[in-house]
Amino acid sequence: MTQSMPAPLDPLTADAAALDAADPLAPFRERFDLSDDVIYLDGNSLGPLPTGAAERIAVVVREEWGEGLIRSWNTAGWIEAPLRVGAKIARLVGAAPHEVVVADSTSVNLHKVIHAALAAQPGRKTILSEPGNFPTDLYLIESAIRTLGKGHQLVLVPREEIAARCDTDTALVLLTHVHYRTAELYDMAAVTAAAHAAGARICWDLSHSLGAMPIDLNAARADYAVGCGYKFLNGGPGAPAMVFVAERHHETLETPMGGWIGHARPFAFEDTYAPAPGIARLQCGTPPVLSLAALEVGVDLMLEADLTQVAAKSRALRERLMARVAATCGPYGAEVIGPPIGQPRGSHVSVAHPSAYAVMQALIARPRRRSTIGDFRVAPSAPARAGVAGSLVESEDAPLAGVMRFGITPLYLRFADVDRAVESIEEVLRTGVWQEPRFQVRRAVT
Amino acid sequence: MTQSMPAPLDPLTADAAALDAADPLAPFRERFDLSDDVIYLDGNSLGPLPTGAAERIAVVVREEWGEGLIRSWNTAGWIEAPLRVGAKIARLVGAAPHEVVVADSTSVNLHKVIHAALAAQPGRKTILSEPGNFPTDLYLIESAIRTLGKGHQLVLVPREEIAARCDTDTALVLLTHVHYRTAELYDMAAVTAAAHAAGARICWDLSHSLGAMPIDLNAARADYAVGCGYKFLNGGPGAPAMVFVAERHHETLETPMGGWIGHARPFAFEDTYAPAPGIARLQCGTPPVLSLAALEVGVDLMLEADLTQVAAKSRALRERLMARVAATCGPYGAEVIGPPIGQPRGSHVSVAHPSAYAVMQALIARPRRRSTIGDFRVAPSAPARAGVAGSLVESEDAPLAGVMRFGITPLYLRFADVDRAVESIEEVLRTGVWQEPRFQVRRAVT
Repeated sequence: MTQSMPAPLDPLTADAAALDAADPLAPFRERFDLSDDVIYLDGNSLGPLPTGAAERIAVVVREEWGEGLIRSWNTAGWIEAPLRVGAKIARLVGAAPHEVVVADSTSVNLHKVIHAALAAQPGRKTILSEPGNFPTDLYLIESAIRTLGKGHQLVLVPREEIAARCDTDTALVLLTHVHYRTAELYDMAAVTAAAHAAGARICWDLSHSLGAMPIDLNAARADYAVGCGYKFLNGGPGAPAMVFVAERHHETLETPMGGWIGHARPFAFEDTYAPAPGIARLQCGTPPVLSLAALEVGVDLMLEADLTQVAAKSRALRERLMARVAATCGPYGAEVIGPPIGQPRGSHVSVAHPSAYAVMQALIARPRRRSTIGDFRVAPSAPARAGVAGSLVESEDAPLAGVMRFGITPLYLRFADVDRAVESIEEVLRTGVWQEPRFQVRRAVT
Repeated sequence: MTQSMPAPLDPLTADAAALDAADPLAPFRERFDLSDDVIYLDGNSLGPLPTGAAERIAVVVREEWGEGLIRSWNTAGWIEAPLRVGAKIARLVGAAPHEVVVADSTSVNLHKVIHAALAAQPGRKTILSEPGNFPTDLYLIESAIRTLGKGHQLVLVPREEIAARCDTDTALVLLTHVHYRTAELYDMAAVTAAAHAAGARICWDLSHSLGAMPIDLNAARADYAVGCGYKFLNGGPGAPAMVFVAERHHETLETPMGGWIGHARPFAFEDTYAPAPGIARLQCGTPPVLSLAALEVGVDLMLEADLTQVAAKSRALRERLMARVAATCGPYGAEVIGPPIGQPRGSHVSVAHPSAYAVMQALIARPRRRSTIGDFRVAPSAPARAGVAGSLVESEDAPLAGVMRFGITPLYLRFADVDRAVESIEEVLRTGVWQEPRFQVRRAVT
């Protein structure tokens, strides 16, 4: 595999076929079960199926569960899997192998880390984040404050003001490295340094950057991090999540939920809790073996790639998409949001439109080989509406404004895919096909 | 399928072939991928693979994840799965469909329920349980007390004294319906009534009874319950768990971890948490779809069975095993513990022996068709030992005392299996083969 991107080709203007031919990551596409019937631009929400995952899961089910039965906890390495896969993910985030474990969901891991940070600094009462952060991060801070009832407060300030707002009352700064909607990217080292200068700790939610770019938690001196397994890691729907705690905090690390698997001696069945050493104590209950096996396949695949190449190709693909959408779709009311071309950003591109939901439905519904799958995120200013209830967005008369979100995933996306996607977006907007009643709001989960 | 057990045959003395021929549950054995090479008596720790599960998981992986991609959250019903499978489990535990959801692990669900109970009754400071309860239950109470720092206390009293010990300071009684080691069974209705008489709430951990016997949470007026998916429900290793909250508590139900999936409007992406109605708020992060799909197959299979028949066959199988082990293995130092024949108990049988670990290893290692798989649980009085560290029981010179635990799972166990198992136990004990060095303590997870 070539070690560098092809220098002479300009990714904004060169022919897609030439760019794909020169792409050192091109062989990775064959490692996914991806049909050419669709252009999949939602790997930032759910990564596609690695070819090895179906085979691996079948082995886990038929041989390890079916034949090995209970013995597989030992003989198939199930019991070590959370720490084993954690150590692999550590290589993707600049952590030591013993600083990461896979357990539960991103949300549950946030819960652990928030409580750990507050318990470690009982005199500090402020948790700092930004408005519009991914909701679960804010909700779990709210939960911790309510549960503790000790006068903590959640302070939300715009991202530009975070560093300046850190003070001697700040216990924890909790930020998402790449914003789920705008793809804005924090300077992890700089913001971490600002938090530390005020004596505060910081937790980075890596959900939208893990597997999409090089990350170096220890170089930045991060205290805590969590990250998602089912997005860029291609770990399968609802894959378990990672949690990182810097080694310097291990000795005093307190979990709010000491479960038996995180005990120092789980099979001694003692009445009294004694935490396992280090990161292992952030395990709580029995790990979901099937989902964890799928995640490991995705992580192993990601470890074969050079994340510097991944980030370079992400930039080339997304800037090509951004430039072409701006040029061809602007006249129809579509606007690329977030950091402009040339600026650092995450690996997805959001395009605002007054009827973004309907346009996305029309894009997905296009005929074979033109169907373009991204997702929809509601406009942040939209008030809670009666029609948006339960887990589904229900039928409404009014159009649903927001963004179409397109994930740029260099392991399997080709420059030709980007060009086809842009042509589809332009055509859907130009023809107005999205105005057909069947594309108006019914339900959206993605 | 016949609707009643065969009356004329005495399960303690009749020929096993005749008992199996008359067994109305016998056809269920074909619904599992179970080899006749082993006698599997550990379904109380990890249920075997239902034949439908391998096929179902392959469909979820290849079609729903591989082809449906992100669309499957809607089109394949992934988003509704936690409530859908919860409603199915509700039928096994005497709950209304909207009182149960599947989420996270048993331990994480215990954490939610403990905090919910304490938040609902801030003036009461005592949590009552028994010594030797399954450790995770006690550890999570400890965690909640430490996190809150509001003067709560965990009081452990023997099971006979629980009812009398409930008083006006008792916030929560947390008990395991069937004891994981002894198989002792609580009278759910009586103990619940005693807790309520003192104004306390009660949580039943159903991990060792769910799927093994009829349970009626609402008849007993239980407040909370949790239960395990990978034991008698045959939901696969690390299957997600159930949590029940009685409808009368829904309106005021507070979760300590309000995550985005448990929000009233998850896809409105609001900054402020608003709980989803009822039990749905006990979801936190994205559910593990693959593990949940496997669990649903196990639950569907269990719903085909008549739990009264299951409980009757469990009694017949276990009392046959208990009587024969007592008769043939007593001279070799083996002792059946827990409630005696004729008394109500859970669906596993524990046999104490001074070298229980080695005997169990020798049983598992027997040749094909005689290999008998149960598990080992350390003696409760055993102190924490240097050799019992991490997640494994490491090599020791001294024998490891405790119990051999045999799970009685009527959907796939035959009377002939029980007889073969007892013959194996007797032979291993009589010949002393367990004294070979290879069976001495090395590692035990199960």
